[in-house]
Amino acid sequence: MPELKFGHYRDVEAKKVEVEGARDVTIRWLVSDRDGAPHFQMRLFEVAPGGGTPLHTHAWEHEIFIVKGTGAIALEGGEKPFAEGHFIFVPAGALHSFRNTGAAPMQFLCMVPSGTK
Amino acid sequence: MPELKFGHYRDVEAKKVEVEGARDVTIRWLVSDRDGAPHFQMRLFEVAPGGGTPLHTHAWEHEIFIVKGTGAIALEGGEKPFAEGHFIFVPAGALHSFRNTGAAPMQFLCMVPSGTK
Repeated sequence: MPELKFGHYRDVEAKKVEVEGARDVTIRWLVSDRDGAPHFQMRLFEVAPGGGTPLHTHAWEHEIFIVKGTGAIALEGGEKPFAEGHFIFVPAGALHSFRNTGAAPMQFLCMVPSGTK
Repeated sequence: MPELKFGHYRDVEAKKVEVEGARDVTIRWLVSDRDGAPHFQMRLFEVAPGGGTPLHTHAWEHEIFIVKGTGAIALEGGEKPFAEGHFIFVPAGALHSFRNTGAAPMQFLCMVPSGTK
């Protein structure tokens, strides 16, 4: 049986995202397969001003919530600006990339199914 | 194939949580089964000062992130205070309830598996 997990994101290690084309992005795995999460995982990304992730796609969905800052998501239909409080469902197979368009760090939660990265 | 969904939580209807014992709590379904989300759903709860949810349990897990405000979660081992940036994994079957302990609205995201409420 998985156990309850309670914490603050600041106490979770921020790992640099090493994917080619990613710039000044960190990821914190808040709840993951390692915690016994049976269906989905919760990660917090932080993107420095000027930073971003490359255009990419994968076989699973993202559910995203913008926690802080301003940025934009590039999609096949163009780029959409976002700020705190926006949410995005990126279905499996959809091309997407993120960038920080502001002067402060931008944070977003990104949930993915269990068993994926 | 599910489609991309992009929006702001303010533009999603806030429904009153009608569960017995819930007080001054609303829920916004940001991404749900109705959007074709294949694995999990994302909801935003808002709890007014003094409000909260009753102690309850269910057969699926919660993954929670505190977006704004301060509050506490009651668990079998006692009550834990939280603030913006805390996260909680409540495994299936664990008793839990939330209350707002602050003077401002408290918001948290709560993700659940698809096919559940």
